[in-house]
Amino acid sequence: MEQVKTLLEDHEIPRQWYNVMADLPTPMKPPLHPGTGQPVTPQDLAAIFPMNIIEQEVSSQRWIDIPEEVLQKYILWRPSPLYRARNFEKLLGCPVQIYYKHEGVSPAGSHKPNAAIPMAYYNKVAGTKRMTTETGAGQWGSALAMACQMFDLVCRVYMVKVSYEQKPYRRLMMNTWGAECIASPSNLTQAGRNVLAEHPDSPGSLGIAISEAIEDAVNSPNTHYGLGSVLNHVILYQSIIGLEAQKQMKKLGLYPDVVMGCCGGGSNFAGISTPFVCDKIHGKEVKIVGAEPTSCPSMTKGPFAYDFGDLAKSTPLLPMYTLGHDYIPAPIHAGGLRYHGMAPIVSHLVREKLIEPRAYDQLKTFEAGVKWARSEGFIPAPETNHVLAAVVDEAMRAREEGKEKIILFNWSGHGLVDLVSYDAYLSGKLEAYELPDHEIERALKAIKDFPKP
Amino acid sequence: MEQVKTLLEDHEIPRQWYNVMADLPTPMKPPLHPGTGQPVTPQDLAAIFPMNIIEQEVSSQRWIDIPEEVLQKYILWRPSPLYRARNFEKLLGCPVQIYYKHEGVSPAGSHKPNAAIPMAYYNKVAGTKRMTTETGAGQWGSALAMACQMFDLVCRVYMVKVSYEQKPYRRLMMNTWGAECIASPSNLTQAGRNVLAEHPDSPGSLGIAISEAIEDAVNSPNTHYGLGSVLNHVILYQSIIGLEAQKQMKKLGLYPDVVMGCCGGGSNFAGISTPFVCDKIHGKEVKIVGAEPTSCPSMTKGPFAYDFGDLAKSTPLLPMYTLGHDYIPAPIHAGGLRYHGMAPIVSHLVREKLIEPRAYDQLKTFEAGVKWARSEGFIPAPETNHVLAAVVDEAMRAREEGKEKIILFNWSGHGLVDLVSYDAYLSGKLEAYELPDHEIERALKAIKDFPKP
Repeated sequence: MEQVKTLLEDHEIPRQWYNVMADLPTPMKPPLHPGTGQPVTPQDLAAIFPMNIIEQEVSSQRWIDIPEEVLQKYILWRPSPLYRARNFEKLLGCPVQIYYKHEGVSPAGSHKPNAAIPMAYYNKVAGTKRMTTETGAGQWGSALAMACQMFDLVCRVYMVKVSYEQKPYRRLMMNTWGAECIASPSNLTQAGRNVLAEHPDSPGSLGIAISEAIEDAVNSPNTHYGLGSVLNHVILYQSIIGLEAQKQMKKLGLYPDVVMGCCGGGSNFAGISTPFVCDKIHGKEVKIVGAEPTSCPSMTKGPFAYDFGDLAKSTPLLPMYTLGHDYIPAPIHAGGLRYHGMAPIVSHLVREKLIEPRAYDQLKTFEAGVKWARSEGFIPAPETNHVLAAVVDEAMRAREEGKEKIILFNWSGHGLVDLVSYDAYLSGKLEAYELPDHEIERALKAIKDFPKP
Repeated sequence: MEQVKTLLEDHEIPRQWYNVMADLPTPMKPPLHPGTGQPVTPQDLAAIFPMNIIEQEVSSQRWIDIPEEVLQKYILWRPSPLYRARNFEKLLGCPVQIYYKHEGVSPAGSHKPNAAIPMAYYNKVAGTKRMTTETGAGQWGSALAMACQMFDLVCRVYMVKVSYEQKPYRRLMMNTWGAECIASPSNLTQAGRNVLAEHPDSPGSLGIAISEAIEDAVNSPNTHYGLGSVLNHVILYQSIIGLEAQKQMKKLGLYPDVVMGCCGGGSNFAGISTPFVCDKIHGKEVKIVGAEPTSCPSMTKGPFAYDFGDLAKSTPLLPMYTLGHDYIPAPIHAGGLRYHGMAPIVSHLVREKLIEPRAYDQLKTFEAGVKWARSEGFIPAPETNHVLAAVVDEAMRAREEGKEKIILFNWSGHGLVDLVSYDAYLSGKLEAYELPDHEIERALKAIKDFPKP
């Protein structure tokens, strides 16, 4: 019997998060206040986030202690196992060893609770009574619903309408954890009503749902907003994935040649990769690859620019690769990872050439996902299928180059609540889709009046 | 930080299954051939099972080696973690320590692959090319679909129609793993056509679906049937749960006062409990409790009798607690565990007073399940909620008795693909339901001409 899993005991869980801000070779551009064009101050953010989270958002401290109360929740599923995908390796027949962090073991089935738990905890400590958020495919909304329940906070989730309708089980998860889930655009906010007035049949977008959640938080007593990706503090919390992976690879006496993740807003990818980015900055040779959809190719096709995080322009201007805050994903796009922008940290690392972005079309991603399910057993989330396509790609390159490689990637979540898109794939209803050029023109128009980074 | 999980490394996985048949204080009654009234011979079973599995079905060997090929698949998720449910303990505020085996970590989300993997493996070795089976809620069907894919067998699953319609995601899991899933009763078999002729709107039952799967296996080339519970070899395979739990409790320096599981056909319950039954037979003091639904109360209300395992009377007569092979669950019954009979081994242990059965109504089970999800995070399968109701019950008894107790139970699976029944519960659409007396009269009538055990 060949070993498959490398485990860490509860007491081996990392006690600190890693903040890549401390190690960047060049400083990041600051977020700007859209009114003044000046860098935002902590005070500017206080309407939506509690001050303890804002301090982490702007911190450049390398290591940040994980509170005891957060650790006690993390160990419900963390440290997550590091797997070797021996069956998938055999199927590919390439000269690679493939290791993955199985983030599907969390109660919500993805990496998202890594950020939801501390976010709910810090809000609780700061006196927040209620949280609002947005969700696309539902991974983040269900994670925050669970976290709020664990810290006794009321939770409302604005869920992109097309997903709300296609994925009833995600709403039911949120309800089971005691949260309210609203289809967005909704009539509950001005932002939602504005969209509905113009497009009564709008399928919604993350940009719209974020606007609704922020508006709700700003206008409601004792309420704060929580964002599931993109921002620095979210990426900080997710670093626990990469820190655990480093411990586990060390137990095996190995170091990866390639580290990979799929990219929507960037949080699971940054989570596994920033500790390795740190090594790379300090001289280690390691390739770090982020896989995004060809249908939402912010890193590979979008301009690097200042843009809003949401449609209603309620966020600061963020320096990032963006498809424009008015981007609405094509209905044909089945696989999640639909956010118009990429985390400023990830965008910065791409510009620094510390990270290499690649785009994969959805047929390739589901092909890889079904192969995975049929060899390794676990059915991946459609989002996760993007990194699987990249792993297949990398394995094939290794064969062509005649090089042995150790690949490490983040298996960000399972697809048991997202099987409808597998149905579409298996019954031949999915098509390859690449974002058309006129969408890039729209994006450039959307950002043309903003300051240039 | 207080420890929550007790892990075993891959190499600590048990290498043998435990067969409780070797330790029974009195022998079990044999299954009978319905035509002759004589004990069935291995040859009688050869039409539906391969001989290597039949040998295990009738074996009284205490320890049976787990083949290397089966171990290599088991370690994709096994050994499963032993959890301490500290948050649920706090919520109950009773003098109990609650430990559970988390069988939801398997790719199919339940304990069912423990039996599906060896079943597919032994069939492969015996030259089978195709397997058929039945499934109710879908846990077993999806497990066998995955196992057949892993050993390159074609798989067809007959799924009880009401579940097929209510739980589309289960069918999609089976499809993703390459299996075919048919709503039962179907037009593909005589058994199905007979039911449809009389009841075109039949919601189906496990008894009907078993008849269809057996008929298909018997009439198709190179095809064998696989049953997901009830039979001795299934209970043998599931013993790995209890064997691991014993190792893990030993690591903690503890021994349980109470061992519990939920009971449908009996496989997950027997899986965790038979190794402890062995201890009990050899003098150890331990209470062993099986929790079944008041809507399908085979152990607590059914007669102990010889009965068929399926509606079309294609199985041998099995000595078991039964609600009659013509039992059809009430539509109000939401929580799985719908089989009319109880595994002969479990039935025998109940009669020997080594096991104590209890019945819980579905409102109590979902109440316990939602409390669990909101404290421990993981959303339990509706089936699993039955043992949670029993755990709550046992904890309350401990408080009343003023005794400290260590409870161990089998958390048989997660409910992420069964959230529709949570929706029914949370929106107040579920009612308490107890099997009415006329159903027992029907059962007695159904078995009245059979030999008495």
